[in-house]
Amino acid sequence: MTDLITPNVPETWRQQLAQVMDGKPVQRLITVLILINAAILGMLTSKEIVAEWGWLLLPMDMFILAVFVIELALRFAARGIGLLRDPWAVFDCIVVGIALVPASGPFSVLRALRVLRVLRLVSINPSMRKVVQALLASLPGMGSIIMLMGLIFYVSAVMATQLFGERFPEWFGSLTASLYSLFQMMTLDSWSSGTVRPIMEVYPHAWLFFIPYVLIATFMMLNLFIAVIVNAMQDAQEPDPEVAARIRREEMILEELKALRAELGEMRRQIK
Amino acid sequence: MTDLITPNVPETWRQQLAQVMDGKPVQRLITVLILINAAILGMLTSKEIVAEWGWLLLPMDMFILAVFVIELALRFAARGIGLLRDPWAVFDCIVVGIALVPASGPFSVLRALRVLRVLRLVSINPSMRKVVQALLASLPGMGSIIMLMGLIFYVSAVMATQLFGERFPEWFGSLTASLYSLFQMMTLDSWSSGTVRPIMEVYPHAWLFFIPYVLIATFMMLNLFIAVIVNAMQDAQEPDPEVAARIRREEMILEELKALRAELGEMRRQIK
Amino acid sequence: MTDLITPNVPETWRQQLAQVMDGKPVQRLITVLILINAAILGMLTSKEIVAEWGWLLLPMDMFILAVFVIELALRFAARGIGLLRDPWAVFDCIVVGIALVPASGPFSVLRALRVLRVLRLVSINPSMRKVVQALLASLPGMGSIIMLMGLIFYVSAVMATQLFGERFPEWFGSLTASLYSLFQMMTLDSWSSGTVRPIMEVYPHAWLFFIPYVLIATFMMLNLFIAVIVNAMQDAQEPDPEVAARIRREEMILEELKALRAELGEMRRQIK
Amino acid sequence: MTDLITPNVPETWRQQLAQVMDGKPVQRLITVLILINAAILGMLTSKEIVAEWGWLLLPMDMFILAVFVIELALRFAARGIGLLRDPWAVFDCIVVGIALVPASGPFSVLRALRVLRVLRLVSINPSMRKVVQALLASLPGMGSIIMLMGLIFYVSAVMATQLFGERFPEWFGSLTASLYSLFQMMTLDSWSSGTVRPIMEVYPHAWLFFIPYVLIATFMMLNLFIAVIVNAMQDAQEPDPEVAARIRREEMILEELKALRAELGEMRRQIK
Repeated sequence: MTDLITPNVPETWRQQLAQVMDGKPVQRLITVLILINAAILGMLTSKEIVAEWGWLLLPMDMFILAVFVIELALRFAARGIGLLRDPWAVFDCIVVGIALVPASGPFSVLRALRVLRVLRLVSINPSMRKVVQALLASLPGMGSIIMLMGLIFYVSAVMATQLFGERFPEWFGSLTASLYSLFQMMTLDSWSSGTVRPIMEVYPHAWLFFIPYVLIATFMMLNLFIAVIVNAMQDAQEPDPEVAARIRREEMILEELKALRAELGEMRRQIK
Repeated sequence: MTDLITPNVPETWRQQLAQVMDGKPVQRLITVLILINAAILGMLTSKEIVAEWGWLLLPMDMFILAVFVIELALRFAARGIGLLRDPWAVFDCIVVGIALVPASGPFSVLRALRVLRVLRLVSINPSMRKVVQALLASLPGMGSIIMLMGLIFYVSAVMATQLFGERFPEWFGSLTASLYSLFQMMTLDSWSSGTVRPIMEVYPHAWLFFIPYVLIATFMMLNLFIAVIVNAMQDAQEPDPEVAARIRREEMILEELKALRAELGEMRRQIK
Repeated sequence: MTDLITPNVPETWRQQLAQVMDGKPVQRLITVLILINAAILGMLTSKEIVAEWGWLLLPMDMFILAVFVIELALRFAARGIGLLRDPWAVFDCIVVGIALVPASGPFSVLRALRVLRVLRLVSINPSMRKVVQALLASLPGMGSIIMLMGLIFYVSAVMATQLFGERFPEWFGSLTASLYSLFQMMTLDSWSSGTVRPIMEVYPHAWLFFIPYVLIATFMMLNLFIAVIVNAMQDAQEPDPEVAARIRREEMILEELKALRAELGEMRRQIK
Repeated sequence: MTDLITPNVPETWRQQLAQVMDGKPVQRLITVLILINAAILGMLTSKEIVAEWGWLLLPMDMFILAVFVIELALRFAARGIGLLRDPWAVFDCIVVGIALVPASGPFSVLRALRVLRVLRLVSINPSMRKVVQALLASLPGMGSIIMLMGLIFYVSAVMATQLFGERFPEWFGSLTASLYSLFQMMTLDSWSSGTVRPIMEVYPHAWLFFIPYVLIATFMMLNLFIAVIVNAMQDAQEPDPEVAARIRREEMILEELKALRAELGEMRRQIK
C-alpha cells in the first residue's frame, strides 16, 4: 500500500502540514489531551479540589486549551478557509471558541459550556464519529412525523392554555408553560398523579382533553419509534452477495443452452 | 403530459372553478393563511398581547376565518354536495364550522376548539395527509387486541370498584373512576408509589389484584406494540423486483430446453 | 359445502344436541346474554342504580346466570365428561361456577370475581380466542429468560432484605415486601425519587446495589421484549409459496436435461 | 454413540474423577442442594423463622456450603489449576469463596452477598448458561453507543454541577450526585415533576438544559434498544438450508449442460 502512496510526495509545505496534522501521532496526542482535559474539568467542579490543586489544574487547563487553539490554527494554515466545509471542523471551532469568550457578567453561563470541548472526542474518533453520523442520518426519515407531532403539540398547547390557564397558571398559564407541561405529560412523568387529578378536582371533565392527548402523543411516539426501527432494519439488510453469484450462474445456463441449440441447428443442417 | 390533459378542456364554469381551487396558487395561499392564523391564535392566548395588539389580531383572525368560509363555499360550488364523500373535506367543514358557532354561555368551551382550524395544515399538505392516513390505516390491524384490552379494562374496573370502591372512593368509587385509575396504572404513572401502597395499608392483599393487572395490561400493550411493528415491517418489505426477473429467466431456460429436446427428437427421426 | 356435510346425519340425540349447541343461533344468543350481563354487572357497581333499578337488574342477572348453567349442562349432556379436555370449556365452568358459590362471610371477595363471567366473550368469540391463544403461545419461548428474571428477583430480594430491611421495614422488611418493592423498581415507578434517594440518606452507598439492579432488571426486560418481537417476526414470515414453485421448476429443468442427454447418448449409438 | 466413546477408557484417576463430577448424578445433586440452599437463605431473612428454626437451618446452610467447597476442591483435583480458564468455574469459586470470608466488622456487608451462591443455578444449568452467554454476547455490539452515552453523561454532569450545583446541592452538588441525578432523569422517574420544576422556580431557563438532555438521552437509549433488536434479528436469521440445496442443483444443471455440449461436439465431429 505504501508504495502506491509514496509517489504522491507532498509538493508544498501546506500538504506536508496537512499530512502531519492528520497523521496518527498528532491525532493520538490530541485524544490524550482531550481525556486529560475531561478529567481536569471534572475535578474543577469540586471546590475542595480547586482549593488544593487549583494552582496546578487551572494552568494545565489553559495549556491544553492553547494546544487546541494552535492545532486548529495549523489545520487552517494547511487547508485554508475551505476547512469550514467539513462540519466536524466547524464543530471543533465552536467548542474551542466558546472557551475563549470571557465568561464574566452576562456571559457567566458560558463557563459551563467549556466542558463541551470534551465532545471533541467524538470528532477525533472515527468510530464514534460514524455512530453520531448514523444517528443524525436517521433524523430526516422521521421528518414528517416530527412535523406532525409539533403541530399536535402546538394545537394542544393553545387549547390547554385557553381551557386551564386561568385556574392552573403554573402549568398552563402561558403557551410556553403549556408546551413544557404537555412535553412532560408525553414522557408520562406524573401525568395523572401530579397533573390531571388535581385539575379534575376543578374541572371534572378534564380527562376528555387529557386522555385523548396522552393516547395520541404516545401513539405518535410509538410510530416515531417504529419508523426508526424499520429504517434501521432496512439499512442493516445489506444485499446478499450469494444472490449475485446465483444470477450470474443462471445467465451462464441460459447462454450455454442457446449455444447448444445453435450447435444442434448447425448439425441438423449438416445431416440434411 | 400536458398534451394528454389539455383535451379535457373544462366545459363548464364548475370544472374551471374546481381546477382553480385545486391549483397550486390557491393551495399555497391557504397554507400561508393557516400558518398566520396559527401564530395569531397562539398570540391570543396571552392577555398582554391581546391588550396591546388585540385591535389588530382579532380582525385578522376574523378575516382569515372569512377566507376559509369563502374557500369552502367555492369548493362546494365547484363539486356540489358530493364533496362530502372526501373525508378530508368533511374534516375541513367541521373545524371551520366550529369557529362559526357563537361560543357563549354553555358553549364557551368551543372557543378553545377554534384552534383545531390549524389542523387544516394536515388536510392541505399531501405529505402530512399521507402520514395521518398511514397511522389510521394501522389501527384496524390492532382491532382484536384493542377489543381484548377493552374487555380486560372493563372487567378489572368492575372488580376494582367492588373490591376497593368503598374505602378509596377517589380512585375506585365508580366505574368511570376505576376505568380512569386503571388507565393511569397501565401507563405505570405512580401505579405503586401513589396507588397500590396506600391501598395495601388497608387491604394487605391488594397486590394479588394489582400485580396481575399490571403484568397483563403491560403485556397486552407490548403485544399491541409488536403488532404495529410487525405490520409496519411487512408493509416496508416491498416485493423484490429482481425475483421477478429471475423467475422469467428460469421459465426461458425451461422453454429453451423443451425446444432443444423437440429439435433433437426431430433430428433422430431424420437419421433413422 | 352443505351437500358434503348432510350425509353425516346425526345418529343419536347427543350429536343432534351438540350440533344445536355449536350452531350459530345458540352462540349468538349466548354472546348477546354475555353483553347484557356485562352491562348489568357494571350498573350494579353503582349504589344509586341498585337502589332504583335493583328489583329489575338482580333478577335479570340471576336469570342470565341460570341460562349459562343450563347451557353448560346441555354441553356436558352432548359431549359427556370429555368436554373438560377442551381448556376453554374448563374456563367456562370455572367462571360460571364462581357465581354459584355463596359469597358470604370469608368468601365475600368471590362476589367481585363474578364479573369474570364476562370473559366468556373471549371463549365464545373465535377471533378473540385466537388472539389469546397466540398470546399464550408466545409465553413458552420466553421461559428461560423468565426463569432467569425470577432467579435475579429472588437473589436481589434476599440481599435487599438483609441490607436495608432493618432501617426500611416498610419497603424491605420481609422477603415478600422486598419482592414487591423490587418489582415496583423494575417498572421504574418512583424507583429513585421515592425509594433510593430516601435510602441513600441513611446508606450513602445504596446506589451500588440499586443502579446495577435497575440496569440488569431493565436489560432483562428489554431482552424479554426482543425475544417476543423476534418470535412474532418469525411467525409472521410465512413460507413464500413462490419459492416452492421455483424449486419445482428447477427440478423440471434438471430432469429435462437428463432426458436430453440420455436421448443424445442413444442417438450417438445409432450413428455409430 | 457409546461404542465410539468407550475406547477412551479413563487412564488415570483424574480422568475418572472428572467424568464423575461432570456426570448427571453429581450435577443433579448439586442443583437440588442449590435450590434447598436458596430456600434456606430466603427463610433466614425472617427473624421469626430464625428464632424458631435457626437451630436446624444454620447447620444445614453450613453443611451445604461444605458440600460446595468439597465439590469445587474435587473439580480442581480432577482438572488442575487449568479449571480457572473456564469463566464459569471462576464464577463458582468467587460466589462460594464469599461465604468463607468471616463477615464481621467492616466486612459485615459480605453477609448479604452470600446469597449470590444461588446464582450457581445459572452456571450449572446449561440452558440458563446459554441465555446469559447470549445476553453478554449482545453487549460488545453496543460498545460505541455505550461509550457515546458515557461521554454525554459525563459532559452533562459537569455542566449540571456548574450550573445548578450551588443552589441544588442535593441533586447536583458534586459530579457523582449529578451523574446519579442524570441517570434518574434518563429513566424519566420524576424528571420534571420532582426535579426540573423545582429548579425552574430558581432558574426559569433551566429547561434549555434539561429538555435537550432528556431528548438526547432517551434518543440514545432508543438507539441502543434498536441496535440490540437489529442484532438479535440478524442472529435469528439463520441461513436457509434450502438455499444451499438450490445452489447445488443449479451447479448440477450447469455441469450437465457442459457435458451435453461436449458430447454434442464429439458427435458432430463423428458425423463429419
